[in-house]
Amino acid sequence: MIYFDNSATTCTNSEVAKYVCDCSTKLFYNPSSVYAPSINVKNILNEARAKMLKMLHASSSDNLYFTGSATEANNIILNGLARKNKKILVSIGEHPSVFETAKNLKNSGFNVEFINLTKDGLLDIQHLKTLLNSDVGLVSFIHVSNETGAINDIASISKLIKQTVPTCLVHCDGVQAFCKVDVNLSNTMVDAYTISSHKICGPKGVGAFYLRHGVNLKPSVFGGGQESNIRPGTENVPGILGFVKAAEIMQSNFEQNYKKTVDLKNYMMQKLQQNCTNFIINAQNANTSPYVLSVSFKEVRGEVLLHALEKYEIYVSTGSACSSKIAGNRVLSAMGQNQNDIMGNIRFSFCNDNTKEEVDFVVEKLSFELNNLRRIK
Amino acid sequence: MIYFDNSATTCTNSEVAKYVCDCSTKLFYNPSSVYAPSINVKNILNEARAKMLKMLHASSSDNLYFTGSATEANNIILNGLARKNKKILVSIGEHPSVFETAKNLKNSGFNVEFINLTKDGLLDIQHLKTLLNSDVGLVSFIHVSNETGAINDIASISKLIKQTVPTCLVHCDGVQAFCKVDVNLSNTMVDAYTISSHKICGPKGVGAFYLRHGVNLKPSVFGGGQESNIRPGTENVPGILGFVKAAEIMQSNFEQNYKKTVDLKNYMMQKLQQNCTNFIINAQNANTSPYVLSVSFKEVRGEVLLHALEKYEIYVSTGSACSSKIAGNRVLSAMGQNQNDIMGNIRFSFCNDNTKEEVDFVVEKLSFELNNLRRIK
Repeated sequence: MIYFDNSATTCTNSEVAKYVCDCSTKLFYNPSSVYAPSINVKNILNEARAKMLKMLHASSSDNLYFTGSATEANNIILNGLARKNKKILVSIGEHPSVFETAKNLKNSGFNVEFINLTKDGLLDIQHLKTLLNSDVGLVSFIHVSNETGAINDIASISKLIKQTVPTCLVHCDGVQAFCKVDVNLSNTMVDAYTISSHKICGPKGVGAFYLRHGVNLKPSVFGGGQESNIRPGTENVPGILGFVKAAEIMQSNFEQNYKKTVDLKNYMMQKLQQNCTNFIINAQNANTSPYVLSVSFKEVRGEVLLHALEKYEIYVSTGSACSSKIAGNRVLSAMGQNQNDIMGNIRFSFCNDNTKEEVDFVVEKLSFELNNLRRIK
Repeated sequence: MIYFDNSATTCTNSEVAKYVCDCSTKLFYNPSSVYAPSINVKNILNEARAKMLKMLHASSSDNLYFTGSATEANNIILNGLARKNKKILVSIGEHPSVFETAKNLKNSGFNVEFINLTKDGLLDIQHLKTLLNSDVGLVSFIHVSNETGAINDIASISKLIKQTVPTCLVHCDGVQAFCKVDVNLSNTMVDAYTISSHKICGPKGVGAFYLRHGVNLKPSVFGGGQESNIRPGTENVPGILGFVKAAEIMQSNFEQNYKKTVDLKNYMMQKLQQNCTNFIINAQNANTSPYVLSVSFKEVRGEVLLHALEKYEIYVSTGSACSSKIAGNRVLSAMGQNQNDIMGNIRFSFCNDNTKEEVDFVVEKLSFELNNLRRIK
């Protein structure tokens, strides 16, 4: 089995899974209770929070809230930072959890405008500049595109925004960035940043977001006051600890993983050039994540190709797993791709365990199936 | 260690924890992907949904949505069923995830009124009758009180509501009821029903809610379309499967567990009468859950008593773990208790592993510490 769909989700690290299992029975106490074992769990939870802030290179005085998913985090952030008297700018390249939340805000009477993408899938900074003025209260854009791997320069873009409109808040969805590309929030002027556990070999059902100290986020979920009233509900401490452990494992080998994955992606691109014809590598002129390789194959339907590869137990995606076709269409369309190329899109996405031998096998089968499908056509 | 705080949270069943661990690596695929292993996971997820509906004695044509917590479920339900042109009735005896969400709806311009409790902690049906008219679109009340264990008769109350206002929707928070008291939704006219995993020895970070077929719930969380657009975000399949397994274990021994816990609670009440003085057993004249025993000790502060018991590694609660004092005050106040009695409230809450020997030890220490504390005072 060759799993090249790690941007959709990853296999939980077995050491992490065992650790979560262990915590589920040993650290099961409710952090809101007031006796010693609960206070101990609450302290462990706050240590986890501090570790996460440190891994994001944020200040220890900043906030980090754990959630049940990155989707929930993005909903809480956008709903909590949106103000009726201020304009909200959101890029067209967002994950549905940002894009659809922004569309709902627009439908609810908020002033929302969408920022274009360049042909390489990056935030169109020229367009951003034309939209930025003192009416703008919030800008949200993705750090690493889940569709193409294109990396937005969150440091320079956030600085540009703050220089133009100092009161404007900046949110970045870092789900495909954290532990995969360099994330150093201290070098940025980002106010809110979303991360996810199941994209980095952590347990499913856990997300988190960073919120800069002093930023006023209006609660939109109500309950027992947990997570400083921002995300109420009994804290999933075993899952949270698994998330932190997964991040620590990824971070401890960051340089090595990164270099290996850059090599792997370069190797795959080279192999594709040598063995396949008539395709476009998306976001080719942008700085991209080594973990994502988006390719549009001409004269073939991505879905048909995906199922052809499935015969060999090779698993890839036709775009993001969430509302795949709709979202994939939106992002690739915004990059100026025509409908035929979009229909032939395949996303290969890697984890640290993938190998060049797997790439060899995938490209061999891909080449064979492409010829086959195009001949039939 | 004696853990009598199982209404706050339970220790995850070790068999369930191992099963979740196993699923995390074997069934890690994203259910939204379109290749065979993902379709398999999606099918397993839908089987889990069907099993849960069956355990609730709901129709297989009804809906069940998995969430990241019961708090999230209650937020989604109230926000999704509230209509600006209809009145919402919510009992004062609700968990904060219902009560605070209702208060937020009221602050946002919705017409919300609160239904009183009887002195035994039940929904005041006479008050409900005076509030019920054709303007009412939604009534939400708890099945089993997390504060007192009082059981509202959801069958007769839901029928009363529907007979008076056929178009009115009925939501019950069943978090402290599911797998602990008889839950048979087919005998009721309830439209939405909330349940939680971590209260029944399942993994933390998983909730769910039942929604009757045909009920129109407006989405309030936005993203990739998972859970029929009602709760987007990559499904936490390992956690969901753990939740279902925990429920199956509880259900398979339901009669035996129930009888044993009734015995245990009766035994504890008897021991209290024999060994302690000057206390009130709350909701004493109501039908109550055997899993909750709420006692208000006079002339002592609950928090002081809690810490006194903690010396013996006996863990109890001074009310619900969520915003304990505020919520505890609200519910006990609505039952007509005076502030002094409320301040002396202790909640003992059981699981199926608790024993009479534990009760003996707890009552012995309780009696000693009560005398001690009252003497000092």
